[in-house]
Amino acid sequence: MQQTSEGHRLRSRTIGFVPTMGALHEGHISLIKRSKSENDITVVSIFVNPTQFGLNEDFDKYPKETDSDIQKLEEAGVDTLFMPDASNMYPDGFSSSITVGGLDSKLCGEFRPGHFSGVATVVCKLLNITRPARAYFGQKDFQQSVIIKRMAADLNIDCQIVVCPTIREGDGLAKSSRNSYLSAEQRAAALVIYRALNTGAEMIRAGEKDAGAVKKQMNDMLAAEPLVSEVQYASVYDPATLDELAEVKRETLLAVALRIGSTRLIDNMLVSL
Amino acid sequence: MQQTSEGHRLRSRTIGFVPTMGALHEGHISLIKRSKSENDITVVSIFVNPTQFGLNEDFDKYPKETDSDIQKLEEAGVDTLFMPDASNMYPDGFSSSITVGGLDSKLCGEFRPGHFSGVATVVCKLLNITRPARAYFGQKDFQQSVIIKRMAADLNIDCQIVVCPTIREGDGLAKSSRNSYLSAEQRAAALVIYRALNTGAEMIRAGEKDAGAVKKQMNDMLAAEPLVSEVQYASVYDPATLDELAEVKRETLLAVALRIGSTRLIDNMLVSL
Repeated sequence: MQQTSEGHRLRSRTIGFVPTMGALHEGHISLIKRSKSENDITVVSIFVNPTQFGLNEDFDKYPKETDSDIQKLEEAGVDTLFMPDASNMYPDGFSSSITVGGLDSKLCGEFRPGHFSGVATVVCKLLNITRPARAYFGQKDFQQSVIIKRMAADLNIDCQIVVCPTIREGDGLAKSSRNSYLSAEQRAAALVIYRALNTGAEMIRAGEKDAGAVKKQMNDMLAAEPLVSEVQYASVYDPATLDELAEVKRETLLAVALRIGSTRLIDNMLVSL
Repeated sequence: MQQTSEGHRLRSRTIGFVPTMGALHEGHISLIKRSKSENDITVVSIFVNPTQFGLNEDFDKYPKETDSDIQKLEEAGVDTLFMPDASNMYPDGFSSSITVGGLDSKLCGEFRPGHFSGVATVVCKLLNITRPARAYFGQKDFQQSVIIKRMAADLNIDCQIVVCPTIREGDGLAKSSRNSYLSAEQRAAALVIYRALNTGAEMIRAGEKDAGAVKKQMNDMLAAEPLVSEVQYASVYDPATLDELAEVKRETLLAVALRIGSTRLIDNMLVSL
């Protein structure tokens, strides 16, 4: 893969890169379309990265749909699929890890220790292997995108990190490979996330400055849904620092992580005034 | 610098890179000569990296000899000198760091906590900025070279790490920018390091298999030198894992770190049977 990429670079062909864990949905396809519109070559990786899963997380049951993924990539006109083995990515003796201090302990970081170090390390590896001019990430994983931007800038990785809008189902649920874990009843209940974020955003657009009031309203809505088994966070944040806000700013991030049954779902919304 | 390097790569010119902290001596010049013999372009960096110095170490007094360094680089025929500011390397908000677990806590790591993380991080940055085909390091910093090789392999950095022989003064003292801290009396006393390493190597070559006996002999010699104020380590190691050995192997590392007055000196010798 590295030689292929280097060959493209030598011919001054720009590479756009879309890293995925497979189980591709329209969110991934939107990143691929964006990449194809901005680069000569589009490379997609499928790699369910073990180091970003915690001990009790869903690594073993993470959906694997390689055949249909490949078909979707062919239909989307992807040039190259990079699909490494874990044993190639992490051979015996592997011992390096990248941490992005501060940012990686907030929001999801509090509930998934080591997760963002696993993400930062594998993305650094993938960027060094695929050598793209631009790499594409979905806004749904907002904290991930902030951390990867920081890591790429800090380590002087010569690649633009492009964050693309969250793609949603018709009713508003953010597309996610993990939605497939939900029963029909849970799927209906999950809509509360979108409704809470929307309500928070509407409050802010209507002039609410007190972030605490927005946070309370969102949490009240989530608490009222009986199938929500745990709200990990639901609040108002500075999108640059990921610090919780007391007062709404010109650009504000609303973000939620919760469980429905054992399925963990996240979503967020950026509100600009 | 990154654009310059990318320009060379686009023209299929190979870059050799020699990272330094300045105060250049013949050890550095030997790396430059090697780089020039193996690459089209040779880039040298001078950057006294603050993040690899501990709180009570010699960052503030580390020798700065920029004018004579530049002259030496011109005489050596170096193509490009990269000399960044700390504020460019570590701008506000910088938060990433690379750790190379296991290897970074042994030998010097025990006495310089955080040092190798600082080294790994800055070398990763410098390699991403200068994009060399080969980067050159001296064997005197043996542990550093092992850690950098590991980091470059783990993070898929497309660069060969070349380790070059330690260059010594006529009497055997390893060349080091820190030798300039020594008084004449301390300079004479420092020779005990080379004598201890040589004695250890001779014992092994003469058939000694007991690493403990070699270690004891080296430590006895160092203890007999009154100007040695602290022996941090002096022992027999596996050069791949940096683990201390009970029995001599086909390839064995002898390594020493000690202080003479407040000056910390390190040296090592590889013995192959």
